[in-house]
Amino acid sequence: MATKTTPKDRSNLVPFSSRLETGRALAEDVWSIFNAANLPADCINLGQGYMNFAPPKWVTEAAEEALNSVAANHYSHPKGRMRLRQAIKKVYGPQLNRDLDVESEILVTSGANEGQYSVFTAFLEPGDEVICFEPFFDQYLPSITFNGGNPVYVPLHPPANASGKFSSDEWKIDADELRRAITSRTKMIIVNTPHNPVGKVFTRKELETIAALAEEFNLLVMADEVYDCLVFDGKEHVRIATLPGMWDRTVTVGSAGKSFAATGWRVGWLIGPEYIIKPTLAATTRIVFCSNSPLQEAAAAGLEQVQERKFFEQQRAEYAERRTIIAKAFDDLGLPYTMPEGTYFVLLDISKVKFPEDYPFPKSVLGRGRDFRACWFIAIEIGVSSIPVSEFYCEEHANIGEVYGRFSFCKDVDTLHQAAERLQKLKQYIV
Amino acid sequence: MATKTTPKDRSNLVPFSSRLETGRALAEDVWSIFNAANLPADCINLGQGYMNFAPPKWVTEAAEEALNSVAANHYSHPKGRMRLRQAIKKVYGPQLNRDLDVESEILVTSGANEGQYSVFTAFLEPGDEVICFEPFFDQYLPSITFNGGNPVYVPLHPPANASGKFSSDEWKIDADELRRAITSRTKMIIVNTPHNPVGKVFTRKELETIAALAEEFNLLVMADEVYDCLVFDGKEHVRIATLPGMWDRTVTVGSAGKSFAATGWRVGWLIGPEYIIKPTLAATTRIVFCSNSPLQEAAAAGLEQVQERKFFEQQRAEYAERRTIIAKAFDDLGLPYTMPEGTYFVLLDISKVKFPEDYPFPKSVLGRGRDFRACWFIAIEIGVSSIPVSEFYCEEHANIGEVYGRFSFCKDVDTLHQAAERLQKLKQYIV
Repeated sequence: MATKTTPKDRSNLVPFSSRLETGRALAEDVWSIFNAANLPADCINLGQGYMNFAPPKWVTEAAEEALNSVAANHYSHPKGRMRLRQAIKKVYGPQLNRDLDVESEILVTSGANEGQYSVFTAFLEPGDEVICFEPFFDQYLPSITFNGGNPVYVPLHPPANASGKFSSDEWKIDADELRRAITSRTKMIIVNTPHNPVGKVFTRKELETIAALAEEFNLLVMADEVYDCLVFDGKEHVRIATLPGMWDRTVTVGSAGKSFAATGWRVGWLIGPEYIIKPTLAATTRIVFCSNSPLQEAAAAGLEQVQERKFFEQQRAEYAERRTIIAKAFDDLGLPYTMPEGTYFVLLDISKVKFPEDYPFPKSVLGRGRDFRACWFIAIEIGVSSIPVSEFYCEEHANIGEVYGRFSFCKDVDTLHQAAERLQKLKQYIV
Repeated sequence: MATKTTPKDRSNLVPFSSRLETGRALAEDVWSIFNAANLPADCINLGQGYMNFAPPKWVTEAAEEALNSVAANHYSHPKGRMRLRQAIKKVYGPQLNRDLDVESEILVTSGANEGQYSVFTAFLEPGDEVICFEPFFDQYLPSITFNGGNPVYVPLHPPANASGKFSSDEWKIDADELRRAITSRTKMIIVNTPHNPVGKVFTRKELETIAALAEEFNLLVMADEVYDCLVFDGKEHVRIATLPGMWDRTVTVGSAGKSFAATGWRVGWLIGPEYIIKPTLAATTRIVFCSNSPLQEAAAAGLEQVQERKFFEQQRAEYAERRTIIAKAFDDLGLPYTMPEGTYFVLLDISKVKFPEDYPFPKSVLGRGRDFRACWFIAIEIGVSSIPVSEFYCEEHANIGEVYGRFSFCKDVDTLHQAAERLQKLKQYIV
């Protein structure tokens, strides 16, 4: 074996692209810092949002069947497998009140993430602006900047003086603030509903406000609705694409991973008018060529059967129970938190959690928001990990996010009960 | 259901990005034109390169096992699953003569295609030039231009007066031509060996010539070696990364799809020094976040067992038999062709195939190279589809490619015998 030559002086080597200096792409991201591998082995992971249970058996069986065939192990059409596009049409057509065209209005992507990236590739010119409501899903940032765009931030405002629990509905956008954020370079607004990490399900009225501005300024809307099957308490999940005139400027984003507890399958989809889908197909075809075939078959089987099995109803009931367990833990603690109307995230106000300033924090959390240290302290001392929310804000507005830790409840009931019990130990650190 | 509103006047709608005007991204690509769906149902498909057989059972079983677990249905680390990175190290480490670091020198991607795209995202600045040998894998083009780069073409030259079969080794690069193509903006050379569609396996001497220029001008080398397990006749497959000094500037690309007859799994990998892998990880993390987990487990199981099962040796023998069948068909026909030392493609010289100029060709093949019409004519009249090779050339050099049709032999023996028989009917059209 040759000995390793680690280049000491990068200056002689080919430099990486300056686009990596944008969108925090080279910073150590929050997922790596709060990765289970960096925390004690017995820490309960309510950080990154993935389930500690498997997808339904009747869904994975379809993947097994595909693996035992020939065609479903080979290239799919870049648009996605016809069976999956048909299944998406079946489930989403009625919700969008449209007879969807499987050839021109539906596009399967390698996860919702790659689908969104492809939309940016297809539509952004250098200097184009994309409006994101803060807190925002952190992947938006580099996905926009890598494609030459500039993110523009409009905060969701939590209620001014919350002392106990409050509904995610109380996080509000300011219509004037949104209007002021629009410039001649604005090309797109991202509307994430149900919203990660707030759990907010945008009301019809709020969406109408956004839609009116999109119409007035001729903007695209990316409706990131990957948590669409996780809305609680009978709250209406309005799809912005169904508002008058909005189909023509909206691309709706969905995810098999969120729908079927299979975050590692990397199967997502985009639904929209042909003039959005066609360029996005051209982009995704070059980025990934096509998405993996066996798990597209599984996602298709899933969507084909959700109605007769009442799967989403049952899954929603299970998540509602999980939400109750974590909410009760926070009630017992007496800390303010956001009761989410959707998603599997709860924002806990951790501003009153007191930790020693000389606590042995790792370097990665020092020099970041206070929430990085608070979440680290809670993970180590209490044994429950979460994600600091300032990561989901631009620097200017990080102070809003610094107040919160995001706790995921996409875990089985026993794990959540155990976490709830541990969290009570936090009382001693509350001032 | 609402009636469909098809926007008639796109001028009011948001325009797509000008990057889609580059790299032929919106042109109807050759794969769509020669798609099985556009051809008679009984046409034998030797066009797009995918197998009409399934991956090995012992490999798909690992995917089934993963589907029945919890963790392997959820997010993988963006670097790839540890099991797969370990398996890649095991197989590739000895071939690259290095003790590969699974944390910093191996990166799993969503197919080799997305891996290559991510390298371009990570390294290209607007206006950077990437040298491609013609004919080139057509996805390189938009992958480069979408990331702001400009492809620069250097042809591989076929022998001047071939009248019968000739080895893919007789396709040669001209070192002076390569040197002249290098400018102050050149950042990278793509070396595809074994080469699609020529089947050429670059010799050590040829690679040394390329390596010397890469060193002289401080260029990156993307070694696209996705057909590395398909090299025939005991020909040595030299990895350019193993040449003196070249590890430090080379990223080697591999593919589970090509290795295990699973083109639809979308699992590929990159191997290279940390200064290449790290920025590329930053790119792929934002583009796809991570690759699908269950099929990474399968690819890992595959690589773990290839040595004890002698799988690549056995697969190579099977492909050698397939190559013999198709070669004999061309010998019998008496048309010149390239006998490939690697890959599953044969280039047939179709310049002497005569077709009526008033043949009812579809619009999609008119106005393209003569080979588009010849391949269409052969598909319809003879019942064997192939891919016209001018698609793999820039316009200026399309005349070199126009002479050839690419026939894939990644099909079972019976299908190939049947194709061979049909191809004899071509005799009547040879002038």
